[in-house]
Amino acid sequence: SNVGLMEEVQNPELVSWNEGPTKQAIIDYVMDVTNPSSSNFIPVEDRIATFDNDGNLWSEQPAYFQLFFAIDRVKALASEHPEWSTQQPFKSVLENDMKTLSTFGEHGLLELVMASHTGMSTEEFEQIVIDWLETSRHPRFDRPFNELIYQPMLELLDYLRANEFKTFIVSGGGIEFMRPWVDEAYGIPSDQVVGSSIATEFDYNNGNPIIKRIPKIDFIDDKEGKPIGINRFIGKKPVFASGNSDGDLQMLQWTDSNKYKSFQLYLHHTDAEREWAYDKNSSIGRLDKGLEEALNKGWTVVDMKKDWKVIYPFEMK
Amino acid sequence: SNVGLMEEVQNPELVSWNEGPTKQAIIDYVMDVTNPSSSNFIPVEDRIATFDNDGNLWSEQPAYFQLFFAIDRVKALASEHPEWSTQQPFKSVLENDMKTLSTFGEHGLLELVMASHTGMSTEEFEQIVIDWLETSRHPRFDRPFNELIYQPMLELLDYLRANEFKTFIVSGGGIEFMRPWVDEAYGIPSDQVVGSSIATEFDYNNGNPIIKRIPKIDFIDDKEGKPIGINRFIGKKPVFASGNSDGDLQMLQWTDSNKYKSFQLYLHHTDAEREWAYDKNSSIGRLDKGLEEALNKGWTVVDMKKDWKVIYPFEMK
Ligand SMILES: [Ca+2]
Ligand SMILES: [Ca+2]
Repeated sequence: SNVGLMEEVQNPELVSWNEGPTKQAIIDYVMDVTNPSSSNFIPVEDRIATFDNDGNLWSEQPAYFQLFFAIDRVKALASEHPEWSTQQPFKSVLENDMKTLSTFGEHGLLELVMASHTGMSTEEFEQIVIDWLETSRHPRFDRPFNELIYQPMLELLDYLRANEFKTFIVSGGGIEFMRPWVDEAYGIPSDQVVGSSIATEFDYNNGNPIIKRIPKIDFIDDKEGKPIGINRFIGKKPVFASGNSDGDLQMLQWTDSNKYKSFQLYLHHTDAEREWAYDKNSSIGRLDKGLEEALNKGWTVVDMKKDWKVIYPFEMK
Repeated sequence: SNVGLMEEVQNPELVSWNEGPTKQAIIDYVMDVTNPSSSNFIPVEDRIATFDNDGNLWSEQPAYFQLFFAIDRVKALASEHPEWSTQQPFKSVLENDMKTLSTFGEHGLLELVMASHTGMSTEEFEQIVIDWLETSRHPRFDRPFNELIYQPMLELLDYLRANEFKTFIVSGGGIEFMRPWVDEAYGIPSDQVVGSSIATEFDYNNGNPIIKRIPKIDFIDDKEGKPIGINRFIGKKPVFASGNSDGDLQMLQWTDSNKYKSFQLYLHHTDAEREWAYDKNSSIGRLDKGLEEALNKGWTVVDMKKDWKVIYPFEMK
């Protein structure tokens, strides 16, 4: 139809999204709130869009990619820490015993992060992340982790920016773990990244100042932390928010309370073949209450298998 | 000369800056680092410029404007707090006894801020700031406080943005005290504001979520806090930094350590007639060590009286 043709011309960016209610809901929303004669028009300065990262802009299976990074760092540092060969959770990391590692829960992960993410300057840490991305490979796809980003979400980010939305990452992941690569991956600059953080200290260092990462949690950007982080870093309530787990629910509720017409997007992992299928029974990226609330409130749910033509950019080639 | 004419054409924005070494140093720097054939060229994504606010983008005499706000809020809230009539530092505020108030030092100010800046939602606080700016007047100029912004700095911000620098505020002032008005005043959006902050809590509030301001300091964005805040919010080292007091020294040192050619600008208040003249003996905006280091390191110092044709935008009319 002519309508279809016009959309194709106006929105060339969503090419990896199958036609259907999900893609149409996104386009209808953006067309409405950017139309100056619509009662739902949103001024450019209030077009704030926030995106969760793990499992929403890139994959998060079989474990959060930052955990692979922490494990590789622990192994790299092991020669300086002979005590780790007998001390948990480090022992299980060094023995590649993921089953035992998982028994230490969040506290164990935190110990790995503290041991592997602190004690250096912010510039050193940035270089460590860059080097790791160049040398490490995802166990299933045998590709650098930052190639496992979602092509349809890249198009959505571009589409929103073309319509003068300002796009932000709001992730439970480490802010300084994301910043070195997200600009190239997603077109999101470092100052538009909200994430969990480690405490830091300024050291004048005899005229060569550095900022040191110290073994103390500064902020956890998850659940209630997401609206808190959005308020702290962005200072405005989003009109568009996108996530994939219960950890995003408060961000979506916060966005849903905007005085402007808002849009909530949940990504449902339904594609075991091309990616992974998981929701309410997954320890990684659990989506249970969020899905229920999405259904109750009429939020948009992406069915990955049905809605996405491709998952990763490398499938386009 | 032809060179002068070319500059005039290329840089129409710095019209309120007198010709001389200060203006020329700014233009020379910007022309150099934005020139793709220069060895000092800086890629657009690394053109981060940070500006202190109090005494640097707007005035700060005879007291920080946020203190006037706190005092007005204490007076507005006094009827709900009969105990304040006998309890310091509130008693001296209610009796307009600034001399006694000043004896309570930073701790006293903190008590005023906690009593007047917390206990409400972030949206309520924003409205209180907006209302205050509309109704309050500066004691010397009898104008809204947000009219006492520096015309030459507005031009400098515009000039940097025209050359694809991303401009940020990095201020010891309250982040949520600044955000409601700085976009209109300086063209700096809320997410490009770094400041001191109060702790907050997310409250689902039966489906009408709010973020509550609670009486606890979250972060002090001053001295060592400035590079810490820059790293946390921006995630990149600035190439251009501008301040007016010793509280900006660490920010300028941090900027001076950039691998790119960087620019440090200290604003020296030398104009008692049109604004105020103060430096090393002032309790507000003290500039002592910073001025010494600027001279030692060859940083650029603005002599307000000599370098600025006008101070405030209302002088242009
Ligand atoms: Ca997620
Ligand atoms: Ca200042």
